[in-house]
Amino acid sequence: MIVITKPEVTEERINEIAGHILRAGVQPHVSRGTDRTVIGIIGQADPALAEHLRSMKDVENVIKISKSYKLASRDFHPDDTVIDIKGVKIGGDNLVVMGGPCAVESPRQIDEIARLVKNAGGQVLRGGAFKPRTGPYSFQGIGVEGLVMMAEAGRKHGLLTITEVMTPEYVDICAEHADILQVGTRNMQNFDLLRKLGSIQTPVLLKRGFSATYDEFLNAAEYILAGGNPNVMLCERGIRTFESYTRNTLDLAAIPVLQSLSHLPVISDPSHGTGRRELIEPMAKASVAAGANGLIIEMHTDPDNSSTGDGVQSLFPDQFAALLKDLEKLAEVVGKRFNTVKEPQEAFAVWTR
Amino acid sequence: MIVITKPEVTEERINEIAGHILRAGVQPHVSRGTDRTVIGIIGQADPALAEHLRSMKDVENVIKISKSYKLASRDFHPDDTVIDIKGVKIGGDNLVVMGGPCAVESPRQIDEIARLVKNAGGQVLRGGAFKPRTGPYSFQGIGVEGLVMMAEAGRKHGLLTITEVMTPEYVDICAEHADILQVGTRNMQNFDLLRKLGSIQTPVLLKRGFSATYDEFLNAAEYILAGGNPNVMLCERGIRTFESYTRNTLDLAAIPVLQSLSHLPVISDPSHGTGRRELIEPMAKASVAAGANGLIIEMHTDPDNSSTGDGVQSLFPDQFAALLKDLEKLAEVVGKRFNTVKEPQEAFAVWTR
Amino acid sequence: MIVITKPEVTEERINEIAGHILRAGVQPHVSRGTDRTVIGIIGQADPALAEHLRSMKDVENVIKISKSYKLASRDFHPDDTVIDIKGVKIGGDNLVVMGGPCAVESPRQIDEIARLVKNAGGQVLRGGAFKPRTGPYSFQGIGVEGLVMMAEAGRKHGLLTITEVMTPEYVDICAEHADILQVGTRNMQNFDLLRKLGSIQTPVLLKRGFSATYDEFLNAAEYILAGGNPNVMLCERGIRTFESYTRNTLDLAAIPVLQSLSHLPVISDPSHGTGRRELIEPMAKASVAAGANGLIIEMHTDPDNSSTGDGVQSLFPDQFAALLKDLEKLAEVVGKRFNTVKEPQEAFAVWTR
Amino acid sequence: MIVITKPEVTEERINEIAGHILRAGVQPHVSRGTDRTVIGIIGQADPALAEHLRSMKDVENVIKISKSYKLASRDFHPDDTVIDIKGVKIGGDNLVVMGGPCAVESPRQIDEIARLVKNAGGQVLRGGAFKPRTGPYSFQGIGVEGLVMMAEAGRKHGLLTITEVMTPEYVDICAEHADILQVGTRNMQNFDLLRKLGSIQTPVLLKRGFSATYDEFLNAAEYILAGGNPNVMLCERGIRTFESYTRNTLDLAAIPVLQSLSHLPVISDPSHGTGRRELIEPMAKASVAAGANGLIIEMHTDPDNSSTGDGVQSLFPDQFAALLKDLEKLAEVVGKRFNTVKEPQEAFAVWTR
Repeated sequence: MIVITKPEVTEERINEIAGHILRAGVQPHVSRGTDRTVIGIIGQADPALAEHLRSMKDVENVIKISKSYKLASRDFHPDDTVIDIKGVKIGGDNLVVMGGPCAVESPRQIDEIARLVKNAGGQVLRGGAFKPRTGPYSFQGIGVEGLVMMAEAGRKHGLLTITEVMTPEYVDICAEHADILQVGTRNMQNFDLLRKLGSIQTPVLLKRGFSATYDEFLNAAEYILAGGNPNVMLCERGIRTFESYTRNTLDLAAIPVLQSLSHLPVISDPSHGTGRRELIEPMAKASVAAGANGLIIEMHTDPDNSSTGDGVQSLFPDQFAALLKDLEKLAEVVGKRFNTVKEPQEAFAVWTR
Repeated sequence: MIVITKPEVTEERINEIAGHILRAGVQPHVSRGTDRTVIGIIGQADPALAEHLRSMKDVENVIKISKSYKLASRDFHPDDTVIDIKGVKIGGDNLVVMGGPCAVESPRQIDEIARLVKNAGGQVLRGGAFKPRTGPYSFQGIGVEGLVMMAEAGRKHGLLTITEVMTPEYVDICAEHADILQVGTRNMQNFDLLRKLGSIQTPVLLKRGFSATYDEFLNAAEYILAGGNPNVMLCERGIRTFESYTRNTLDLAAIPVLQSLSHLPVISDPSHGTGRRELIEPMAKASVAAGANGLIIEMHTDPDNSSTGDGVQSLFPDQFAALLKDLEKLAEVVGKRFNTVKEPQEAFAVWTR
Repeated sequence: MIVITKPEVTEERINEIAGHILRAGVQPHVSRGTDRTVIGIIGQADPALAEHLRSMKDVENVIKISKSYKLASRDFHPDDTVIDIKGVKIGGDNLVVMGGPCAVESPRQIDEIARLVKNAGGQVLRGGAFKPRTGPYSFQGIGVEGLVMMAEAGRKHGLLTITEVMTPEYVDICAEHADILQVGTRNMQNFDLLRKLGSIQTPVLLKRGFSATYDEFLNAAEYILAGGNPNVMLCERGIRTFESYTRNTLDLAAIPVLQSLSHLPVISDPSHGTGRRELIEPMAKASVAAGANGLIIEMHTDPDNSSTGDGVQSLFPDQFAALLKDLEKLAEVVGKRFNTVKEPQEAFAVWTR
Repeated sequence: MIVITKPEVTEERINEIAGHILRAGVQPHVSRGTDRTVIGIIGQADPALAEHLRSMKDVENVIKISKSYKLASRDFHPDDTVIDIKGVKIGGDNLVVMGGPCAVESPRQIDEIARLVKNAGGQVLRGGAFKPRTGPYSFQGIGVEGLVMMAEAGRKHGLLTITEVMTPEYVDICAEHADILQVGTRNMQNFDLLRKLGSIQTPVLLKRGFSATYDEFLNAAEYILAGGNPNVMLCERGIRTFESYTRNTLDLAAIPVLQSLSHLPVISDPSHGTGRRELIEPMAKASVAAGANGLIIEMHTDPDNSSTGDGVQSLFPDQFAALLKDLEKLAEVVGKRFNTVKEPQEAFAVWTR
């Protein structure tokens, strides 16, 4: 950490600031320039010290050099985290594809979509039972019933399942029925939810807040890791910018950046990241080329009549299948293995008991 | 609502879309242009219909004309909402000032600050007992104990109190001790929290998400109103932009915009809105000139040693007092009454029992 | 300037970096932390050195402490710049109001508007002869003819005039006819235009680029100042954000920030800053309360039929007059003098020759 | 175009608006909803009419359905534009790579880099002779001399050349020495420059303004096309967002979006789009996977000592060569031909005269 003082600061005041640093248990290192005096801090300072110092009179700026997160950092854990869920590996060289509808609607709907996801080569079935909605009068999901339907479809077709959890109370019931729990963009800084997820071992896919910096995103992951759950995936799903043609701006540089700062797998969501069906294919390919460890894609058999109206960012089943074929070739070029299980009956036999 | 079709749409397809609209219980009204066909929708459509239609093939765009929120809208409630809390009026021509530290630290600290807020002419004491923090290793507030300290200080000095509530479980205990509950910027779309707040009658100060549009902000308020709690204040606290010199960009146009779209009081937060002590005064004045119904301002007796490090956006007590004097003059020029209670002992006698 | 090295840097590499700094004519000051080594630079470094160092291997970050602009900085020029144009003072405690149509349309139109601006108490007549337009098929202004019409109207009614100049070739002809030259938001970094404006003495109102940081804005001003023209006003006119309800987000914190970083007068443009007529009044008042040295406001006698379609952000004459009355009261409260010339015939006699 | 009126509008006022539309030579089509009346406009309206109507009293909103640009639109020109420059094809299925230093520094530097670009398989040599710089005290390029050096290096090694032109006066001299003229991000709306480029036939690479919408970008291209120069390439080079870890946020969705809205080739710039050397490779690959028609990449033999300090976003020559090998494989997967000329001596014989 480095403290930069204002031009007119007195010797006395510098001594006061240095004393403050000493009392915090770290060493000040004063260095006088022509314009300003700079105080370096040596030793591992409490993260609050920076904010403290910044608020002191005569301090112009405080620059953190060490990162505020530890467990999420690649400095701490140099190797890629690979999460193994019932034999499906997420992270490292593996490429995982999660597909399914925005919302679970009926046993028949989710069973049919599970079959299509499986046949296309996907490994994870996505589907919402609880839906976060901007306004109170929109459809809010069918709840626990939907969890049961999706779990059943996943089991039958040999797919892992992922579903969104919105509140700490529902974490346990969701974890009972789904293999992966998703934290939505609006909840990235719902710290009570993050703490609750840190207290279990179920893998979590944490979506980036639509206006969160990389640093905030990794700090949110740190909440879960610090609680004791090491199974965290990061998901880039688009940020909010001035451009309104797309629903969000999918920030693909986030993929290599997060992979360099952190050891956690990075998944890309081209459906929410663009909000437009015709952009899912090119952005899915671009995500894989940028090094993504996986994709989460909306797919619906009848997008025109989806219950949430999110059909506009869903692929049709044939588009989904065609895309996965292309991704397989692409994965090879960028050194990823597309984790297709050719014969679900055997490979996932353990699931069908 | 208006549906705009793609250029190459067939008659048959237009009929299908129109049929879809009819089945939703509203009337389609087809109008053919040289380039595109437009289908107007007459009647009160379900909000999900727009999203539905947007996802249909051959639909280029769907434009909502009616707003998705109702109870928060001025169309629905033409007069200003004035919330009366123990005689302090918030909304309409009244100007309310809320002041206090970022976090409650000790009985002595909060008592001293309460005295200073009261003497300066403020009506509400702010202070955090539960703090949302970006990283898990930062100070998270002192909890329920802090609520009790603040309630005691408010009672003693004849001030209302406001505190942040971060999770549905804590709503009841917070409502027991504070007069106003604050929803922080990161929780603006924590829908379970909003629903819980809709189930009680305690006034709520809802902060704008730092990347929320006006429409999303008013829809969040709608969640509380729709639950049955009419006592909602909106708080502009700065949005996230590319400019990093200030912590946020305080969007003062939000004040007249929200007041025209809605009847709810609009409070401005120049502390979080700028993140810099020296900008609080000019932005507080600008907020009042723009028509704000109130201000929430951080004030601390010893900002250099505040427990959260948010001292950098806190005024010193003498600055706070000087500002309130200036605001009194300013309020008069823009037709607001500064609700200073000159003799707390009498006026708030009811509180001191 | 401070250089922060990567964790794994070798002694040898540090010596290389330090050598590089020495060769640039300034002193390196190495300071070793537990995590990283920091090299402070003592002496006045060339601005390019920072970029240079940042690109070197093993350098993690370079932080500039001194600002890259000098002449625009308050460090360099502690007192407010007050520009005196034919007796109208801009800067310091003076509040100036510039009003007029988006585009000059006819002698009769500009004469009538000039009369209304003068009667309301304005001091400067604005009007565009050359218009920057997003698309090539929109009305582009009436050109030199418009300059002559506006100059004539200003002279007759005792008003200064301001007009936009878009290209270096037109600087001289515009300076011949107008008292102040305006650089539009899209041209803030048109460096050839800035250099040309630096070569004359005519006052310049430089609009902030709609996505320019404060630092970039002041560097743009520096181009003009460095050329030898000290008569520069800065104009906040709204930045581009995710919020689309308003045309731009008027960043009022820019006013006190720019006034603290620089000595140049700061003018606010609530017309372009909001793009909505009903927001001009509250934002104009807020600008003055925030400390603006002046306002530039669109006003039109017949906004419905303005040639550019910018009528939507123009006040009607009676609104303009009412606003100026309110601003006079407001100015007093915040310690500004509203520079109304009560008897134009005398005061501006010099102009009417 | 569609006009939406305010709720309380009178019949009389609707007639006035309709009359206004009729006088503009197009047909109004009134449609009354429960809440609001909507007036559709049939026929090809002047672009200014929308702005006009928007400014009228009782008009709530005007929505444009037709686009404001024509020649840049795919509606107008359904097939991909393929620009052929001395046998190098840009657009359609061809993948072009432009590489070189930020600034031309010396004959030896540019000759050496040209050799490396050629050997790696690139087709175009980039290099700046005139540099746009934020502050007036930074290195501004070596001027015409640099143009001559680069032209010579291009000729010798059988490479096309591209250089930035900043002002209308320099268009002719730049066009004399370079094969492609580049318009930088800050000049995207320098309309005089665009008009001048429209008057010649030299191909233009137009960079997206760092805060320009797709619509504004295509309108800027329209200025050049409308002037008579059909040889325009669009270049996505990153937009300004709240994220400051990267210099810009490279908006890769722009590639398929622009390709669907327009027939012009789309080039991606991962150097400026990220500002970090280590992100160039993944973002270059992602760009190709997203469908880009080409890449422009900074490469320098000695980035640590580049004259502009932009070395931080330059590849080393071996990285550049390795990347191009990977891109060749990737191009194949996404159906693009990497236009490598294996034997420059023959293929470009025409240049070496």
